[in-house]
Amino acid sequence: MTAHRPPAASATRPARITMQDVARAAQVSQTAVSLVLNQRAGANIPPETRARIQAVAAQLGYRPNAMARALRQGNSSLLGLVTDEIATTPFAGDIVRGAQQAAWQQGRILTLVNTDHQSALEQEALSALLQHQIEAYLLASMAHRSLQLPALLRGHPVVLVNASSDDPTLPSVVPDELRGGREATEHLLALGHRRIGLIDNLDDSVAATLRVTGYQQALRQAGLAVDPTLMVKLSGWQEAGFAGALALLQQPRRPSALFCLNDRAAMGALDAARELGLRVPEQLSIIGFDNQELIAAHLRPRLTTMQLPHYEMGAWGVRALLCPEPDGVRQARLHCPLVRRESVQPPGPDFG
Amino acid sequence: MTAHRPPAASATRPARITMQDVARAAQVSQTAVSLVLNQRAGANIPPETRARIQAVAAQLGYRPNAMARALRQGNSSLLGLVTDEIATTPFAGDIVRGAQQAAWQQGRILTLVNTDHQSALEQEALSALLQHQIEAYLLASMAHRSLQLPALLRGHPVVLVNASSDDPTLPSVVPDELRGGREATEHLLALGHRRIGLIDNLDDSVAATLRVTGYQQALRQAGLAVDPTLMVKLSGWQEAGFAGALALLQQPRRPSALFCLNDRAAMGALDAARELGLRVPEQLSIIGFDNQELIAAHLRPRLTTMQLPHYEMGAWGVRALLCPEPDGVRQARLHCPLVRRESVQPPGPDFG
Repeated sequence: MTAHRPPAASATRPARITMQDVARAAQVSQTAVSLVLNQRAGANIPPETRARIQAVAAQLGYRPNAMARALRQGNSSLLGLVTDEIATTPFAGDIVRGAQQAAWQQGRILTLVNTDHQSALEQEALSALLQHQIEAYLLASMAHRSLQLPALLRGHPVVLVNASSDDPTLPSVVPDELRGGREATEHLLALGHRRIGLIDNLDDSVAATLRVTGYQQALRQAGLAVDPTLMVKLSGWQEAGFAGALALLQQPRRPSALFCLNDRAAMGALDAARELGLRVPEQLSIIGFDNQELIAAHLRPRLTTMQLPHYEMGAWGVRALLCPEPDGVRQARLHCPLVRRESVQPPGPDFG
Repeated sequence: MTAHRPPAASATRPARITMQDVARAAQVSQTAVSLVLNQRAGANIPPETRARIQAVAAQLGYRPNAMARALRQGNSSLLGLVTDEIATTPFAGDIVRGAQQAAWQQGRILTLVNTDHQSALEQEALSALLQHQIEAYLLASMAHRSLQLPALLRGHPVVLVNASSDDPTLPSVVPDELRGGREATEHLLALGHRRIGLIDNLDDSVAATLRVTGYQQALRQAGLAVDPTLMVKLSGWQEAGFAGALALLQQPRRPSALFCLNDRAAMGALDAARELGLRVPEQLSIIGFDNQELIAAHLRPRLTTMQLPHYEMGAWGVRALLCPEPDGVRQARLHCPLVRRESVQPPGPDFG
């Protein structure tokens, strides 16, 4: 009765082999792997264990210390990542992961400071970082929004991540929410769905507005009217998805598919379908948005959703900070690719 | 059809009123609240909006800039928080939240660096921080474990968070996992459960070992034998909880309650109960561990679980760093309190 722990890597990038992977495959502790692969003197590891760890590392393609080597060639300088809130969603941690991986590859260490949406704290935090000679900054927002450049950072290299700005001289990177909303809807349309409900629980955020616009564009391009009775908007998380799905699915002509603006709403919608005795995906398709690591791949059925490019945005931000384009400032929108799992299929015979 | 978004605060501390709360209650943007409450010059906010924001802030008990004031009195010095991985679970973000709140109250800014479990990177990161005159450190582990003090930090003030050490001179703080496991089991026993299954999906971690020991202690104290046929151990997340619960619940004499070593396993166990047509909590009680923000309060039924004291550990760590006890080094274990929700009740008549 052993199930392998699923890899944490997102669907959009090849999984990097970590010491954890080596430890699991070699059936030893991570400490042992670290001691052997980092060639730490004085480690008390039996020779046969040492040989097994090295063999497994080679077999899995673990690259020892590639980034550490780059770091030793760099000048150990720090890059500052200033965020407006501590990631309360695990996918937002991907911004940090992407940024630090790119920083390490350039021989830099990333250091994070959080300002809790308090502008007075932001002032203090930035002035502390500047006093400690930290010169280049990513400013990251946990929710996609528009930002102003803090006055203290004028003249310093700055890139916005998951945020945009009216200032055309500021490089920035955001998810392509509109295309994501359009492609989620197009995926359902391509399978034959015509009555596609939408559950919007994102409180007039930038992301919500653009994802809904993408949904509407896709419907119109397919020659379908946007039907307001198929759209519900309400605040909350799983509970909003549950209530919204109940409302949509108890209509006389219920939708054959639901597009939920995030995975937590989709989780609630799945519970609502169960409550109503509707099988997913046989009688109802559900597509989410975000590909939230703790949830999406672990629902029953596993959730088809759109991947937010947080890892890629973090990496993009660091590259833009350290290697500015010769042809000027870039304001990038990154693709949110479809992650196909098991919650979507063509509509059942009721919708023929 | 409006459901209020549930507050993010954990069950163990009173919710702090944030600018977001004020913005929601006053029905204005957070930017507007920030501009008014931080008394930023030149803000273009109509006088009636300004008055409404101030009235709502006073009514809700928002304390303007208390921490920012402390910061201005401090010397804006940075504390380093070095973590072994980026939080992939939202509750781990609570370590950061607790630490930074305590740091702000002491007039310090917390800056985070992550080492991705790579000791070579840890060396580089620490030497970069030290070069930038960051002098005092929290070392935090995302999984409760035993740590060695990195040589570079010898002689600097250091506190371990969610980690312990063999070195009796190092202050450290960890969750009281054993007491948590015992109290989770005692809660079920007190309601009359006698056949209590255990699902262990935590791979021989420190947390797993102690939580299981607590479960066994509670059973023995109640005069019950530890029954190995009621304990399953398997790797994975929701999937492990699902498989483990199916195995336990399909026994001829099934348990009346399940103690899942974390909330993700409990989520899978809930799915298994549904699959078998068992109603929770009427026919089966389920208790989790962790109180994971994205999951526990949002399952159907909402999950009874044990709160990990991550916020309190982060705050404890900063206080121990900045205000060492005169009576020597402390190695603390913090309580994991029971969070009562809806997934536990006395056993049904089948178990009378």
